[in-house]
Amino acid sequence: MRRAVTTLVLGASLAAILSLSPTPRAGAQDSDAVTAQKLRDAALEDRFGYRFVETLTTTIGQRLAGTDAETRASLLAESTLKAAGFTNVHRESFPITAWVRGREEADVTAPSPQHLVVAALGGSVATPPEGIEAEIVVFPLYAQMLATAPGDLAGKIAVVTEAMPRVMDGGSYGAANPIRRRGPSEAAKRGAIAYLHRSLATDNHRLAHAGATNYIDGMPRIPAAALSVPDAEQLARLAARGPVRIKLVLTPTSDPNAQSWTVSGEVKGSQKPDEIVLIGAHLDSWDLGTGAIDDGAGDGIVLGAAHMIQQMKTHPKRTLRVVFFGAEEMDYSGPAYAKMHADEVPHIVLAGESDFGARKVYTFLAPAAAAGTPFFQTLSDTLNPLGIFPTRTPSTQGGDDIVGLHAAGVPVISLRQNGLDYFDIHHTADDTFDKIDPQELAQATAAWTAMVYLALQTDLDFRKPAPDAQR
Amino acid sequence: MRRAVTTLVLGASLAAILSLSPTPRAGAQDSDAVTAQKLRDAALEDRFGYRFVETLTTTIGQRLAGTDAETRASLLAESTLKAAGFTNVHRESFPITAWVRGREEADVTAPSPQHLVVAALGGSVATPPEGIEAEIVVFPLYAQMLATAPGDLAGKIAVVTEAMPRVMDGGSYGAANPIRRRGPSEAAKRGAIAYLHRSLATDNHRLAHAGATNYIDGMPRIPAAALSVPDAEQLARLAARGPVRIKLVLTPTSDPNAQSWTVSGEVKGSQKPDEIVLIGAHLDSWDLGTGAIDDGAGDGIVLGAAHMIQQMKTHPKRTLRVVFFGAEEMDYSGPAYAKMHADEVPHIVLAGESDFGARKVYTFLAPAAAAGTPFFQTLSDTLNPLGIFPTRTPSTQGGDDIVGLHAAGVPVISLRQNGLDYFDIHHTADDTFDKIDPQELAQATAAWTAMVYLALQTDLDFRKPAPDAQR
Repeated sequence: MRRAVTTLVLGASLAAILSLSPTPRAGAQDSDAVTAQKLRDAALEDRFGYRFVETLTTTIGQRLAGTDAETRASLLAESTLKAAGFTNVHRESFPITAWVRGREEADVTAPSPQHLVVAALGGSVATPPEGIEAEIVVFPLYAQMLATAPGDLAGKIAVVTEAMPRVMDGGSYGAANPIRRRGPSEAAKRGAIAYLHRSLATDNHRLAHAGATNYIDGMPRIPAAALSVPDAEQLARLAARGPVRIKLVLTPTSDPNAQSWTVSGEVKGSQKPDEIVLIGAHLDSWDLGTGAIDDGAGDGIVLGAAHMIQQMKTHPKRTLRVVFFGAEEMDYSGPAYAKMHADEVPHIVLAGESDFGARKVYTFLAPAAAAGTPFFQTLSDTLNPLGIFPTRTPSTQGGDDIVGLHAAGVPVISLRQNGLDYFDIHHTADDTFDKIDPQELAQATAAWTAMVYLALQTDLDFRKPAPDAQR
Repeated sequence: MRRAVTTLVLGASLAAILSLSPTPRAGAQDSDAVTAQKLRDAALEDRFGYRFVETLTTTIGQRLAGTDAETRASLLAESTLKAAGFTNVHRESFPITAWVRGREEADVTAPSPQHLVVAALGGSVATPPEGIEAEIVVFPLYAQMLATAPGDLAGKIAVVTEAMPRVMDGGSYGAANPIRRRGPSEAAKRGAIAYLHRSLATDNHRLAHAGATNYIDGMPRIPAAALSVPDAEQLARLAARGPVRIKLVLTPTSDPNAQSWTVSGEVKGSQKPDEIVLIGAHLDSWDLGTGAIDDGAGDGIVLGAAHMIQQMKTHPKRTLRVVFFGAEEMDYSGPAYAKMHADEVPHIVLAGESDFGARKVYTFLAPAAAAGTPFFQTLSDTLNPLGIFPTRTPSTQGGDDIVGLHAAGVPVISLRQNGLDYFDIHHTADDTFDKIDPQELAQATAAWTAMVYLALQTDLDFRKPAPDAQR
């Protein structure tokens, strides 16, 4: 019977969904499952989120944290939420230090002149305006640089050319992260005057991958930049032939008095309005591309899913809040939101973030409390036709935007997208709208729509200890 | 019997080849076929050409026509030929007007600021140093621009966003060429003050594809540049929403007193030294990448093939000449060579050029005179195990470097490489050594080696009229 209904609503029109209501007809659980299926199938046909990404990336383009462009994006998000009928729409500012890219020029000066493609790391200090020039020391592995002693790199430019493996879930990025986050300080500790690393990336294009770094307190702050993958390989080949000198000019600036924005709207719960399911994505982007897959796609997915719920004739039991976070790329979004909304934390029953591109969801992880529950089973059954399988390990991290909420006790849920080519594009000039496949984005949106609906309807307390712990 | 021999020599070592001689043992034709097979199989294992491309692209990098880098490349080619034992090694200069890229900045200024990725067209005039700013007119098809009347584009920047189809033999590039070659003058004729076109390309990266343009005499010369594919699509989306203004700064310079170089060497024929088979590729490159697939790969292929012949104990009957041409990208190479070597034209019995990337050869075309000859059949049989089939249409164009020779009556032969992804990389910063698969390059080199050997041994007069015409 359920199968027949599912088949019937495949390709369901939006009009059909407008009349959907969560009112139970048979068993409440069965009814929720049927409604989730209908919402899922309608979301597959819907393009509200996709159109938002198109408008965001086309009319605003890059949205670097703390810039006018990010502010304009926040206004677009606010007006979009209002026009779509969301309630309790808020646009809130919070203080950040903005970092703005300047000139960035890197050239081999010896043995013979060659141009290199680099991107200054977010937060990097500048070189003198005339640049710095020095011999390089190339390390095929980051660990090889760490194995050198203090002073070993005195006066040199350290270059780490370690490659990052291509994997589906992005795990290699986390593993490689110290190369970018700590590398500059580790090089400085050993005497280096600048630091270059092969982009944390899986492509082979002449586009460097941006990303923030973090200077370690007490270490000299040296200029740092990422090389495109082919440039890193070129330096490795050149250095194998003899001494290589590089001239580096980086002129970024920082503004400690900038502000970023959080924008949110709600679909008020019809029965338990004080219980909030929060879903979000970040609105800021790096400055090199137009932030399509990072994280315009996430914005489109959560907005599209929320919009499906908002259009229902009768709203689900709990309140849905959709949040566009600010300044994620500079590490502000999660802590800032949790701090600004500390008083609401007890009311947020579940949080989820979409920030891993525009491809299909392939698995989900739920909080430990959901293990073995009808919620988990219904969610699994509803997502299965989309090619999504359940991972039975509990979700223990939701993402940067909700890290503060999670630390404060909010349970998180995770819908994982195929990231095999995510790090081809991530943080580069290539992150543009043309990279988004509308049908893949719709699959992810459909998964989020069904998940959100079931989370809004269930009476499950996601904060409960895991079933094992309860025994 | 021949099959058995072929099997035995698969993976033949270079040492085995060093003793190869074209001396007939059974029938001359059979012996040539066996030797061609052995050379082919040895070339599959050889990496001489590949190593030359690595050295060329790593130690010199880009080699823009008329620059110091091109001169250094010519010295490298000369010393490589001499060290490898080629005879009659020559490095000859010829005068060109060099064109050197300057600043190139393109930005949308209205409705809101956005950076665009462009590459000035080779030969483009500069904008004033402060740039020009104007509203754009977008044409999805080049023909739509041509359909406008004089004055229709007065004061505007014309933007052509026509896409180029992905095909194996590069035919779409020839068809699209007027967009770049004539577009600036056609736009100027209609009053435009600058011209931008979607790169003649099949990729979707934020890298613009360079390439030369040709101003039409009598038309105003306006600044012209190629947009990266995603930028062209972004402009089309933006323009669909309302007026768009662009600021363009291009500051290229020209030097009418520059020089380029031709470098050549020979394997002197053992029986008919005055009959020359000429194979070549161009040594210059565009400036954005390191000229690996265009045309370092071609350099490696013809050098690798010539080196196989040079190492033979007894040299083949005719003389082999390998030529590294200069300033191909600025349209000088073919005419300049034919002019400088006009007196030799009667002695050049066949010419071939390798200038279509680093992938496998999949078919060949021979001069009309070869149709139905033992030469054609043996060549076909020898290349067949490499996955190469014969095309029975006569070869009527050899390529830019030998266009002058062909016009003067020299027959041409063509080994066609798989170009499905050639225009992803062609003329961009992405044209770097890492894009070359050594095994694919070796297949192409093996095909050239076998072809060249058979052409050196045959008594066929490639200038003969086609068999049809002889009847």
